[in-house]
Amino acid sequence: MQQLIFTNEVALALTQVINGKQYNRVFVLVDENTAREVLPLVKCEAIADACTITIPAGDTHKTLDTLSHVWQQLQEGGATRHSLLINLGGGVVTDLGGMAAATFKRGIDFVNCPTTLLSAVDAAVGGKTGINFGGFKNELGVFQEAQAVVISTKFFATLPAAELRSGYAEMLKHGMLESHAEFSRLLNFNVADASLDELLALLETSVKVKQRIVEQDPHEKGLRRALNLGHTVGHAFESMALHRGNPIPHGYAVAWGLVAETVLSHMKLKFASSDLQALAVFVRDNYGAFHITCDDYPLLLDYMHHDKKSVSGEINCSLLRACGDVETGVTVTDDDMSAALDIYRDLLGI
Amino acid sequence: MQQLIFTNEVALALTQVINGKQYNRVFVLVDENTAREVLPLVKCEAIADACTITIPAGDTHKTLDTLSHVWQQLQEGGATRHSLLINLGGGVVTDLGGMAAATFKRGIDFVNCPTTLLSAVDAAVGGKTGINFGGFKNELGVFQEAQAVVISTKFFATLPAAELRSGYAEMLKHGMLESHAEFSRLLNFNVADASLDELLALLETSVKVKQRIVEQDPHEKGLRRALNLGHTVGHAFESMALHRGNPIPHGYAVAWGLVAETVLSHMKLKFASSDLQALAVFVRDNYGAFHITCDDYPLLLDYMHHDKKSVSGEINCSLLRACGDVETGVTVTDDDMSAALDIYRDLLGI
Repeated sequence: MQQLIFTNEVALALTQVINGKQYNRVFVLVDENTAREVLPLVKCEAIADACTITIPAGDTHKTLDTLSHVWQQLQEGGATRHSLLINLGGGVVTDLGGMAAATFKRGIDFVNCPTTLLSAVDAAVGGKTGINFGGFKNELGVFQEAQAVVISTKFFATLPAAELRSGYAEMLKHGMLESHAEFSRLLNFNVADASLDELLALLETSVKVKQRIVEQDPHEKGLRRALNLGHTVGHAFESMALHRGNPIPHGYAVAWGLVAETVLSHMKLKFASSDLQALAVFVRDNYGAFHITCDDYPLLLDYMHHDKKSVSGEINCSLLRACGDVETGVTVTDDDMSAALDIYRDLLGI
Repeated sequence: MQQLIFTNEVALALTQVINGKQYNRVFVLVDENTAREVLPLVKCEAIADACTITIPAGDTHKTLDTLSHVWQQLQEGGATRHSLLINLGGGVVTDLGGMAAATFKRGIDFVNCPTTLLSAVDAAVGGKTGINFGGFKNELGVFQEAQAVVISTKFFATLPAAELRSGYAEMLKHGMLESHAEFSRLLNFNVADASLDELLALLETSVKVKQRIVEQDPHEKGLRRALNLGHTVGHAFESMALHRGNPIPHGYAVAWGLVAETVLSHMKLKFASSDLQALAVFVRDNYGAFHITCDDYPLLLDYMHHDKKSVSGEINCSLLRACGDVETGVTVTDDDMSAALDIYRDLLGI
């Protein structure tokens, strides 16, 4: 099982992971940003002799060329099956580095050390690795869990507020999947002026929700689809924003998607109206709204029908009967979805 | 568990595998040779609509470029997680195709249908996939078992005799790992004028020996090293032959390596002299000998010290106490190895 370490003593945690096994060589993968901002914060004896591999920052570099560069650096650095790769960065670094490690000599150990809230709560845990290919996101990759994930909020101090909020949307999702208590706890947290210590505690619960779901369904055959809550509508919003030439952060799309899909949950599964209202207020206050009119519905519905998760072209959602009580694979008609989008606009004041 | 199907009704077996699951698309990977020689033999309704992906033949094409071509063809052909890839070819096709399938959308099903004896008895079973990279063999890859392996000897009718012998050496190895009865059965088979029906029966036992070992140690942490029997010396012979500019088939190197390592087994673990003699006669009659003098020993020892399997630079072998009784991770000194090579030369009449 993947070891999860929540700490602000990252250098110490990495030292323990490295010393726990006899690695003959240690490599650290960073992007240009984390090389500059984060690597100096975790310098310690255990990685003093590590070979650093640097890749360009950003999703446009999550490519086969970059992966090939990492493989080459591992090879030239003399990596063997007894070597370790530490991925120090956001989702691109942990996804691509995880794939590099999982495929080098049929698999070497790797440790994820996420440096953004979104990667801490999402990409770094759960064993999904990958790169984009031929214009499709995460088209190539494998399921392979990291040896350990070291999660700290100390790197988030310098993150833009929008990046914190983006990650927080995935935490909201986990909270809703977990329990009403967790959902309430998250709505009461002040994201706008976040205490990083409090956030670390919230993050620990949140990541463990995901880990528990992933453990029961590592290869996404069923239950793991619960984690798609908010994402059917969220992805459609993201695609539309891209189409408009005005991309939105993934987490914002998820926050807005959560509102729309909670409306659906209320309509179809009797999800409590008071919780829906509370969610909508939180999202409106912290994320604003994604602006749509009914003229946008046909294109949005089209995106949803072509979603990866769609089976035989139907719109498919994971919905909630209540916080902590999910139903995956719910088929949603175009009429239901349009009605839900109407109410989404009302709730967010569009 | 990987399904193994031994049959000469390949089209029927493939049909059953395909119909056993609801695949939305079927792809067949072939190289230029198997496209011409083998694909017409397995044409059936089930793969009539399959999309054929053709790659150049030979180990020099077991590259990232070729893999990338296969990924691209899968993508352009509309492969999803519910699609199937059938690898129809020798070790290059099954290794590379296995890696392509295992990494496309984090893994789609694949079926191996080996067309050479060597790939049937070795590469196609056991979950090792991979490509060469940066001058190293199988540097990139993952462990991923095929959904099914369909093994037939009908494709071997047109194989050169040397290719049959090459594969047969790995069968000898499996026989020695299995039991004295199996070892004797293999020595009594006429490889020079092989009955393909008898060979299919021998192959079934042989492949199951490998499968049983792999099941107990899928990721090569311990027991699987038993399968390295004959390969420490065999690989050194291969490297030396390459160095001399006169490469030898892998299976021939294994046959000669088996003799040398059985000598070591006799010296160090009291392996029966009569069985060693019988093996040497069979190998000399069917494979001739790899010619070495004592002047070659330093370079051979150097290769063995740098073998992948070597831990901290020592020469490491899997040896036999008797047929069916293996000991892995035996350290061998330079003096012991030199003495074994002397006896190897005597036994093979060099």
